[in-house]
Amino acid sequence: MLQPGDRVLAAVSGGPDSIALFHLLLQFRKELGFLLGAAHFDHQMRPDSGADLEFVQELASRHSVAFFCGSKNVPALVKADGGNLEEVARACRLEFLGAIAKRENFGKIATGHTLNDQAETVLMKLLRGAGSAGLGGIAPKVGSWIRPVIEVSRPDILSFLREGGLAFRQDVTNLDTGLLRNRIRHRLLPLLEAAYSHRILEKLSSLAEIERETARYWRWHCRRFIERDDSGPLIRVERLKRRPVAEQREAVRLFIFRARGHLRRISFEHTESVRRLVDQRAGGRQVVLPGGWEIFNAGGVLRARKRQ
Amino acid sequence: MLQPGDRVLAAVSGGPDSIALFHLLLQFRKELGFLLGAAHFDHQMRPDSGADLEFVQELASRHSVAFFCGSKNVPALVKADGGNLEEVARACRLEFLGAIAKRENFGKIATGHTLNDQAETVLMKLLRGAGSAGLGGIAPKVGSWIRPVIEVSRPDILSFLREGGLAFRQDVTNLDTGLLRNRIRHRLLPLLEAAYSHRILEKLSSLAEIERETARYWRWHCRRFIERDDSGPLIRVERLKRRPVAEQREAVRLFIFRARGHLRRISFEHTESVRRLVDQRAGGRQVVLPGGWEIFNAGGVLRARKRQ
Repeated sequence: MLQPGDRVLAAVSGGPDSIALFHLLLQFRKELGFLLGAAHFDHQMRPDSGADLEFVQELASRHSVAFFCGSKNVPALVKADGGNLEEVARACRLEFLGAIAKRENFGKIATGHTLNDQAETVLMKLLRGAGSAGLGGIAPKVGSWIRPVIEVSRPDILSFLREGGLAFRQDVTNLDTGLLRNRIRHRLLPLLEAAYSHRILEKLSSLAEIERETARYWRWHCRRFIERDDSGPLIRVERLKRRPVAEQREAVRLFIFRARGHLRRISFEHTESVRRLVDQRAGGRQVVLPGGWEIFNAGGVLRARKRQ
Repeated sequence: MLQPGDRVLAAVSGGPDSIALFHLLLQFRKELGFLLGAAHFDHQMRPDSGADLEFVQELASRHSVAFFCGSKNVPALVKADGGNLEEVARACRLEFLGAIAKRENFGKIATGHTLNDQAETVLMKLLRGAGSAGLGGIAPKVGSWIRPVIEVSRPDILSFLREGGLAFRQDVTNLDTGLLRNRIRHRLLPLLEAAYSHRILEKLSSLAEIERETARYWRWHCRRFIERDDSGPLIRVERLKRRPVAEQREAVRLFIFRARGHLRRISFEHTESVRRLVDQRAGGRQVVLPGGWEIFNAGGVLRARKRQ
């Protein structure tokens, strides 16, 4: 995850997770020989958000770490353009972090996602309805984004901070968290841990690891079923027809992804409907997907088009 | 699931699920043209278990359905030979049903597993720690065993019984259920449905369907990595080394299954340890599995042996 010579930008909100991340990176930067920067984004979603910024700035300065900050009035933005507050906040923050990393030549961006965040994400996907792709949860490393504390539980984060006498801002973060995530965090996960499975965090994390690698396999493996011509991606029905059901499903999902650009709001039922187009007897029908897309079987070839 | 001319043996405990199953099969047997039998097994685990037997016998007789019963003193058996009460009861019941089906020439055995049983099973596996194989839950059809009401929820079962004025014995079944399953049934699943995801049963069932087909794909696909000689199954490390992680994991699981006969008590950590034997740098080491098995890399070939 970290190599000598790396330039690492830590995303520091000021909450316990990102403060622990910052101090861990501080401890390891000499040993591993990487350069550390800190970035803070002020979403202006609470009156005291400026104090968080000052707290992180002061911390970075005390440890001679380059500090970068950005700010946007997210509530005003949502009021003007609509959208979900948490999602817009997250998008603004990620855009800021990516832009700073690019401008300042940081090859890696470290975020403070913990084992608890991982378990919460898996449970959330499970409750919302997900196949294996969704259960993959948070990847420890995707492109330049790394999560060095993804295998550390929140209790261990808090112990680390307590033992080191390290100050942090109280629960100022959680900007990612919609209502469902908060209920999972504060009620469901503690209940599961106490009454059902005391190693639930580790179990959900192992499941996520298995499912992530399975999803990676499918993305790689199913490329073979998808061709492309001037009108976009296509699947020759003949090639998919006698394949195992799991392979058909994943090829269909990859096909939808290639045509539509993402898999949001694509349910199991959508995938199954498209898969039934592969069946000869169903020739001629078409399947309408969310966002105005339709998939149709034209003479033994599955194609996608955006409806006018 | 059911074809004209089938001979179907329904497993009827007398509880709501199996009574609904019995009446549904009664309704469809003329339409579909199959022959119906009913079997009841008395585990002698409660003083009134004989009344359940009489209840089912009377029901079968009233509808001119051939009735078969068996009995075993399961508590005495467990007292003498040890084992888990629910597991021994289940094993005795399955043995009885299989024997009757064979003797009386029933090609299919129908059990009353519902959508709720499916969701409970998936949650239980999730809480105990499972990869995709475990999350497959209850298959609608395995060999001669069929579950005609696996997509029907328990509330719908109860409505069906109420509307038809159909009598059943009160919660006399649940012999499969250990303590964990009962807590999931009576507390966790209702909580999840009320406060987190009102379509949780359907979502867990879709997940199970996806995971079952994925597991089926892996069993079929990973056969190619496993060879066999006089000393048992083997994997040539060279063939597996450059494959995707997911494929390595599933090949290792199939290898352990072939050698050991089952995958009970094989955790994610076990699979990962065996997988690391594929790595050249780790040559010479061995991995000990539960039940006295060990897997070792002998000159580029993974083999398994039972320890003396």
